[in-house]
Amino acid sequence: MASGKDPKIIFSPSGKRGQFPAGTSLLQAARKLGVDIDSVCGGRGTCGRCQITISEGAFPKDGIVSDAASLSAQTDAESRCRDKQRLKEGHRLSCQTQFAGDVAIDVPSTSQIHRQLVCKDHEVRAISISPTVQAYFVEVTKPDLSDPRGDLERLISALKNDWLLGNLICDLTVTRSLPEMLRAANWQVTVAVKDSTEIVAVFPGLKESLYGVAIDVGTTTIAAHLCDLSSGDVLASAGRMNPQIRYGEDLMSRVSYIMLNSGGEAELIKAVREAISELLAETATGARLQLLDIVEIVIVGNPIMQHLVLGLNPVHLGTAPFSLTTDAATSVRAGDIGIDINPGGYAYVLPCIAGHVGADAAAVLLAEAPYDRDEISLLIDVGTNAEMFLGNRDRLLAASSPTGPAFEGAQISAGQRAAPGAVERVRIDPGSLEPRFKLVGCDVWSDDPAFNDQMPVTGITGICGSGIIEAIAELYLAGVINAEGVVLAEAADRSMRIVSQDRTFTYILVEGEPGVRIEQNDIRAIQLAKAALYAGARLLMDRLGVARVQRIRLAGAFGANIDVKYAMILGMIPDCDLSNVSSAGNAAGTGARIALLDKHARPLIEKQVRAVEKIETATEESFQRHYVSAMGIPHQSDPFTELDKVVKLPINEPATSGRRRRKRGR
Amino acid sequence: MASGKDPKIIFSPSGKRGQFPAGTSLLQAARKLGVDIDSVCGGRGTCGRCQITISEGAFPKDGIVSDAASLSAQTDAESRCRDKQRLKEGHRLSCQTQFAGDVAIDVPSTSQIHRQLVCKDHEVRAISISPTVQAYFVEVTKPDLSDPRGDLERLISALKNDWLLGNLICDLTVTRSLPEMLRAANWQVTVAVKDSTEIVAVFPGLKESLYGVAIDVGTTTIAAHLCDLSSGDVLASAGRMNPQIRYGEDLMSRVSYIMLNSGGEAELIKAVREAISELLAETATGARLQLLDIVEIVIVGNPIMQHLVLGLNPVHLGTAPFSLTTDAATSVRAGDIGIDINPGGYAYVLPCIAGHVGADAAAVLLAEAPYDRDEISLLIDVGTNAEMFLGNRDRLLAASSPTGPAFEGAQISAGQRAAPGAVERVRIDPGSLEPRFKLVGCDVWSDDPAFNDQMPVTGITGICGSGIIEAIAELYLAGVINAEGVVLAEAADRSMRIVSQDRTFTYILVEGEPGVRIEQNDIRAIQLAKAALYAGARLLMDRLGVARVQRIRLAGAFGANIDVKYAMILGMIPDCDLSNVSSAGNAAGTGARIALLDKHARPLIEKQVRAVEKIETATEESFQRHYVSAMGIPHQSDPFTELDKVVKLPINEPATSGRRRRKRGR
Repeated sequence: MASGKDPKIIFSPSGKRGQFPAGTSLLQAARKLGVDIDSVCGGRGTCGRCQITISEGAFPKDGIVSDAASLSAQTDAESRCRDKQRLKEGHRLSCQTQFAGDVAIDVPSTSQIHRQLVCKDHEVRAISISPTVQAYFVEVTKPDLSDPRGDLERLISALKNDWLLGNLICDLTVTRSLPEMLRAANWQVTVAVKDSTEIVAVFPGLKESLYGVAIDVGTTTIAAHLCDLSSGDVLASAGRMNPQIRYGEDLMSRVSYIMLNSGGEAELIKAVREAISELLAETATGARLQLLDIVEIVIVGNPIMQHLVLGLNPVHLGTAPFSLTTDAATSVRAGDIGIDINPGGYAYVLPCIAGHVGADAAAVLLAEAPYDRDEISLLIDVGTNAEMFLGNRDRLLAASSPTGPAFEGAQISAGQRAAPGAVERVRIDPGSLEPRFKLVGCDVWSDDPAFNDQMPVTGITGICGSGIIEAIAELYLAGVINAEGVVLAEAADRSMRIVSQDRTFTYILVEGEPGVRIEQNDIRAIQLAKAALYAGARLLMDRLGVARVQRIRLAGAFGANIDVKYAMILGMIPDCDLSNVSSAGNAAGTGARIALLDKHARPLIEKQVRAVEKIETATEESFQRHYVSAMGIPHQSDPFTELDKVVKLPINEPATSGRRRRKRGR
Repeated sequence: MASGKDPKIIFSPSGKRGQFPAGTSLLQAARKLGVDIDSVCGGRGTCGRCQITISEGAFPKDGIVSDAASLSAQTDAESRCRDKQRLKEGHRLSCQTQFAGDVAIDVPSTSQIHRQLVCKDHEVRAISISPTVQAYFVEVTKPDLSDPRGDLERLISALKNDWLLGNLICDLTVTRSLPEMLRAANWQVTVAVKDSTEIVAVFPGLKESLYGVAIDVGTTTIAAHLCDLSSGDVLASAGRMNPQIRYGEDLMSRVSYIMLNSGGEAELIKAVREAISELLAETATGARLQLLDIVEIVIVGNPIMQHLVLGLNPVHLGTAPFSLTTDAATSVRAGDIGIDINPGGYAYVLPCIAGHVGADAAAVLLAEAPYDRDEISLLIDVGTNAEMFLGNRDRLLAASSPTGPAFEGAQISAGQRAAPGAVERVRIDPGSLEPRFKLVGCDVWSDDPAFNDQMPVTGITGICGSGIIEAIAELYLAGVINAEGVVLAEAADRSMRIVSQDRTFTYILVEGEPGVRIEQNDIRAIQLAKAALYAGARLLMDRLGVARVQRIRLAGAFGANIDVKYAMILGMIPDCDLSNVSSAGNAAGTGARIALLDKHARPLIEKQVRAVEKIETATEESFQRHYVSAMGIPHQSDPFTELDKVVKLPINEPATSGRRRRKRGR
């Protein structure tokens, strides 16, 4: 019981304060006041998590004159912790330090359980660290003839006594290893507990950190980021090609493979799981950890990847009505889906939104959180399909537009994925029509004297999505291409780079054989893709009843590489203040990491996904109408007020002006 | 809304009554009133579960004149059901029958969900049928472009709409098979739901019954009973030797095998699981079912068997302090412990009570339910150890006495298990000392003229536990053995059957080589065993503070075979009114069946097991004292008031009278 004469304590940054009998430890006082201080060892002075500093001086508002002399002397535990360079200079362990006079205590963010990660580029919000799986050190009562309880029950009892964890369950996989573990560790173990309900792993002695991996399974590449679950730090990252590529470059080829080959799904399932397991081993090695140290993974991917990772046959996703086996978030023991981490560890797979809008889109939604905003955001993740969200905190719509793979470099004569040697940036002199360009894997432009020296060993291998878009936009700005996307015959008079080919004209971006050419068919492919993207966005705008969006975020590798100005020149995206159009970076990966590090994010995204209104572009008549009218360059639906500020538009009168939406009263 | 003019309905036996608009179906009325009527098809008239009969005549108390003419005509569904002989004569389907006038309806017990099984011999109570897994028929919405939900989510939605089952979960194993199952079954399926929370199996079309198997894993034999989960009927039973016998006859030999052979536990685990899987296949075949039809199993066994079935290493159960890996009840997917039933089906393993008191003892406790009684019961399950419970609804104690395997025929010169050819009953003429006996597998006594014809093909192979006990008790009653258990030299003068052997005397029960002889060492072995049994019971009585028990129940094969009179003559059990000593039959098997059929039994036994006070005989000084004083025949602790009524005691003055407890004031 505290009395009026007891010493006062105040904690920053929470501002929580109280009075406690002299000799109370700082950690005890923090616990009583609900101050957020981390601890794994439970006050034994061994984990080094509960570090604090004292603020000396007067705190008149609280009637406190803080004095370091009020604190008890450094303990042996603190000395050992300092010797191991775990206890920072000027810091104390709050569990080892008692106070006998008034003190003001600073809790550094690294000692808080629910701290936040600082935002990185592209990220719209900080990640709260509140992992699903937490570590608890306990000493377990040894078995005794007079105590017939099982090893598991004595462990559970210790967790209840020391950490107030009630009604814990434990899977047989973990139970099996318990007797030897407890005896080998002399009954001192660190227990990984999931959701405060289930024991998922037991480690000998004190284990200070647990680890998790966020995995983004793309059609083409798979990326993994290993994180310290308590700090949120990414300790290792790795990526590799999705080995399913040998069954087909694009998703539909892989589904066809399954349709044509009995048991084919098992091959694809095995391939993707093995790749994930290899990536996990690679990241663990990179962080100098064992697979056993990984107690949880989070997986995102499109619906077909989600199905294959879970061992579900995606065959019904290949044909209308594109039905999912399950759209729900799935939490499953990693071993049950053939992925090797700690045997008790779980895999969490984010929910899907619709047959074409997968767990990767859900992850983008989680990373970008348009549902937390007042302004209307348009969020686009460009891939073979462009998944889109439009809306704000009041209402959110989603659709998937069939852009096809042109933006990824497929169906383009010199097209390729964004890999070293691919042209990714293009500028064309509007007078001479001479180009300069930049390659993936090379820091300098083609007109730089150092270009040949720094060129990737591959040489110039082709052109990727962002390159072809910039090339077409530049050709349009230079008057080579008209608003209908036709390479004009008269342009051939302006430069040797414009050559006749069959009955159309081609622009030679890079000379030689094969070189890189922008053919009429390439422009048509991009027009079709960008019209689909634009039409999807317009459809959502119609359904939401808005004529303009207030911000646009472009997610994914494509969104990160493209100069948004060119997207707007081409008419890929609706009109918007260019300063409000930005890249969301690898938002799917960020979303996966959020779901890994913050347990509250999971019910949140599961709820948001259910609340999203799914619009099926294939059955919407207005999608077709928008699609047709969006084929021109630039698109003809909006007045180019914003674009006018950025680029001087060519003088060609738009060919499809008869369909102008502004004439229809918008 | 019901009005005063609406027809009235009353259901028997519940007595529930109400008024409903004319045209309401009987099932609808029953549901609204909370009357317990079964249904799988959900009112489609196909499952035939909701049969009722009408009681014609006047029910003056309720103001009802019940008239069959108030009911709607028989429907086509009912005709089809009648043609398949599924709808009984005079019965109607309550889902198909509407009422337009007052009616009194009888719900036969076969149409009630929570009906009770009639008690069998030995059983102290009826089994309530309330299975964990229940069947629900649903029609699932087909996928549609406008409905992006997954197959699983549409199934869950149908279960919620039709059966009010909310928040269902479904394991990946089941989810995987869902798309093909739903399409092949034209979206009409019967879903097995566990605990109203988890989908464990999906069957095409309407499936009327689900099945479960209760399994008793003994050290020597394993028995399985396949039950219809809705009727409780045992449709097939099977038993076989525990194949672990090749690693050792008794439990400690098997634990030694594991200690001495690295990986030995894996061999024992595999052996017992394979035997269980074979038994499951055998019972399924016997009931003309598939393994897929089995959606749940319940397993009981001693702690070492419980460990091995669950894949836990029992090695620490082999040495003090005999610590269990877990004492809790375990519910686990059967596939996860290598047992083949429906892939989504669960195995429930009852809790253990202590290192020597296992899930089989818990099952005995559940079957006998001494915690529901006022009188003090002593419940004994005799095996290599004798597990005992003593108490009533107020307090219940448990202990395990180290009787050793003598009661099972081991350590006896001619001893064997109770198998065909074993002497199981013995009578000895007190004058001539000539014996007559009965063999396992033979219905007539040895003095019957038909005996030689009906003798098992094995011939006379030895003597089992009940036989040796009866033989010793009869020899004692005939004055051949004194109260110290010594075969008296003077008895050799009375009959040629008493022969000298070394420095002791032997009784020849069956002549020939090897014949069956009762040697002095055999008597000693039984004395040691019965003293342990008795001492355990006395220890519990001391701890409970009672001088007499009010009833004794003997469980297990030994308890079923033995004539309780002889157990009392020998002093195996404390004094008790002989009419209150009875066999509990195969109580462990009954307990397993209760846990299978009645979901409420599981939390009940889990709670009771925790409440039981465990007494460790090894550390109790008074156990040793009782043990020593209980070596004599009959035991010397009680006045033989009850026994006097039954048998005329021999005149020998007890040799151990100096230790008589009654002299100590009892």
